[in-house]
Amino acid sequence: MITLDFKKTNGLIPAIAQDWKTGEVLMLAYMNEEAFQETLRSGKATYFSRSRQTLWKKGETSGHVQDVKEIRVDCDLDAILLKVEQQGGAACHKGYASCFFSKLEGGGLTITHEQIFDPKKVYN
Amino acid sequence: MITLDFKKTNGLIPAIAQDWKTGEVLMLAYMNEEAFQETLRSGKATYFSRSRQTLWKKGETSGHVQDVKEIRVDCDLDAILLKVEQQGGAACHKGYASCFFSKLEGGGLTITHEQIFDPKKVYN
Repeated sequence: MITLDFKKTNGLIPAIAQDWKTGEVLMLAYMNEEAFQETLRSGKATYFSRSRQTLWKKGETSGHVQDVKEIRVDCDLDAILLKVEQQGGAACHKGYASCFFSKLEGGGLTITHEQIFDPKKVYN
Repeated sequence: MITLDFKKTNGLIPAIAQDWKTGEVLMLAYMNEEAFQETLRSGKATYFSRSRQTLWKKGETSGHVQDVKEIRVDCDLDAILLKVEQQGGAACHKGYASCFFSKLEGGGLTITHEQIFDPKKVYN
């Protein structure tokens, strides 16, 4: 079994979720050892919520689960890349397909994506 | 001008580099405020090296510079996505196009990429 380097960043490794078909980068979150093991076991992306300091089964509230199709790790074993099938079409809690819906342009941010759902209707 | 949330992770924000044409995720590194400003100014990906604790102009030694084509930030302003043109065809210091050259399979890692350069010949 591989051992990831959870020590380097205080027990948390950044995990990138990428759409397995389009290649779009959907989000970046963090995993501790338990979240990583749970992702392996369940096949659903499970992160560690830094704000809530608890395991975060992505999509538990919204239904927007990420089915993991492939797991890659980087050369230093301190970053994870998940290729996922995003249920509901939106990874972002603000209702966009990707959390990276803003592009830096002329010193400001331009939203380049359309909102897929209204967060107020999903999280209440 | 936008202000990123450098405080949340002790002054360092994870930055994903993605090939601007193929969409392949090349690497994940970190930026402090200075690295971010230098990336904006120069148009070349500049990170902060955690091991050397210094600004890291990607490709300074190897020549494998990353020309930044687009900068995206996530919904919480605490992650960066760079769309880059990778000079030399390899982002990884181990000689692979992507640092994510290993896939998790059957409890072990399988290398799925071909080595583009021999690190011993590039870094000496």
